[in-house]
Amino acid sequence: MNIVKNELLYEGKAKKIYRTDDDNVLFVEYKNSATAFNGEKKAEIDGKGRLNNEISSLIFTRLHEKGIRNHFVERISETEQLIQKVTIISLEVVVRNVVAGSMSKRLGIPEGTELGQPIIEFYYKDDALGDPLITEDHIWLLKAAEPEQVEKIKSIARHVNEELQQIFAAGDVRLIDFKLEFGLDADGQVLLADEISPDTCRLWDKETNEKLDKDVFRRNLGGLTDAYEEIFKRLGGM
Amino acid sequence: MNIVKNELLYEGKAKKIYRTDDDNVLFVEYKNSATAFNGEKKAEIDGKGRLNNEISSLIFTRLHEKGIRNHFVERISETEQLIQKVTIISLEVVVRNVVAGSMSKRLGIPEGTELGQPIIEFYYKDDALGDPLITEDHIWLLKAAEPEQVEKIKSIARHVNEELQQIFAAGDVRLIDFKLEFGLDADGQVLLADEISPDTCRLWDKETNEKLDKDVFRRNLGGLTDAYEEIFKRLGGM
Repeated sequence: MNIVKNELLYEGKAKKIYRTDDDNVLFVEYKNSATAFNGEKKAEIDGKGRLNNEISSLIFTRLHEKGIRNHFVERISETEQLIQKVTIISLEVVVRNVVAGSMSKRLGIPEGTELGQPIIEFYYKDDALGDPLITEDHIWLLKAAEPEQVEKIKSIARHVNEELQQIFAAGDVRLIDFKLEFGLDADGQVLLADEISPDTCRLWDKETNEKLDKDVFRRNLGGLTDAYEEIFKRLGGM
Repeated sequence: MNIVKNELLYEGKAKKIYRTDDDNVLFVEYKNSATAFNGEKKAEIDGKGRLNNEISSLIFTRLHEKGIRNHFVERISETEQLIQKVTIISLEVVVRNVVAGSMSKRLGIPEGTELGQPIIEFYYKDDALGDPLITEDHIWLLKAAEPEQVEKIKSIARHVNEELQQIFAAGDVRLIDFKLEFGLDADGQVLLADEISPDTCRLWDKETNEKLDKDVFRRNLGGLTDAYEEIFKRLGGM
């Protein structure tokens, strides 16, 4: 595609979004910033933007091939990609296969406990409120999404989970949990959006359970780019 | 009933529970202790035990008359009552008609906002975890209750809400929200348990919205027994 990068629309923790000369397409630039704990912990990490852009491009392409519509259009450069413009739904949709992180703390269940079946949780995207866990009743109360959109989101999230588990299993990686975001496209249809990368997934080595995701940064477990490079390699990305 | 109070079985923040000579019946003594914020704020307040015992006895009797089975057997004295023994389910079931308290903070919605329809929330009864909000998926994960028990609990909670709203409206009191607990009786049936009092309900004066519940204590708004006496009076209790 021959797309012109226009003015900056939005700068988030990990990405910059630019307008293009096509009203339906946005330009995304992945940053090297790493943040955790609602922005309390921050660092600049060389190579992180490149790796997340590469990994997310690769995963969204595979999901598209598996019939899961998503906002990804095209990888443009090492750190840039084009996406379809959507109106983002203010929910973080977390799918869990194994207990870890906030679920372990909230429920007092040891990290690593296998869930018999995947659990989907909704968090309200609001930094000032600390992205709280919410129930489906809260979703309608907050007017974050319609009930039928929530059902659609859960259905897509379950499908993504099945496909992602296979994609990662092929590289001997366990998909512990991950966060998805969704938007509404120009026709008002729910569309998978945002990114899927080691920033948004918990990924453990199949044999050793070594963490190969953002917990390396959150918990000071070593080099973040080494872990992300490893994921990219195991996905067949280089 | 001619029941003998035997040894102390359990002492909680607001009540002491004693065994009796009847295996199916327990003896409850309401204490004057007031606690808030998971026990961080504490006080002894003369008259509180008496008022909660009187109010809860009165409300459980009315609910029974309306066809809502519950664990209440008989008021014995100003501060004592008999209850049916149940195995308590580790859930706090909160029914909300108007936004207040933790819901206001969690969702960033102003206190006093009317909900179009009641919302039921589940909190996991665990002091060490701070009684966290949980979803219905978490309930099965924690094995706190079976799905059909959860449906029964929601159905009873909605019925209690309808009856309580009428009971309080007759005294010009708005029922903002309240917390219920449930147990399983000897036959494994879900039974309404615990207490219903200004300790477990948010109650606002219909005209002035003056708080007539434990928020008077939580927020240092004046005399707690004055508020609780007012509720008892408006329920026709004296």
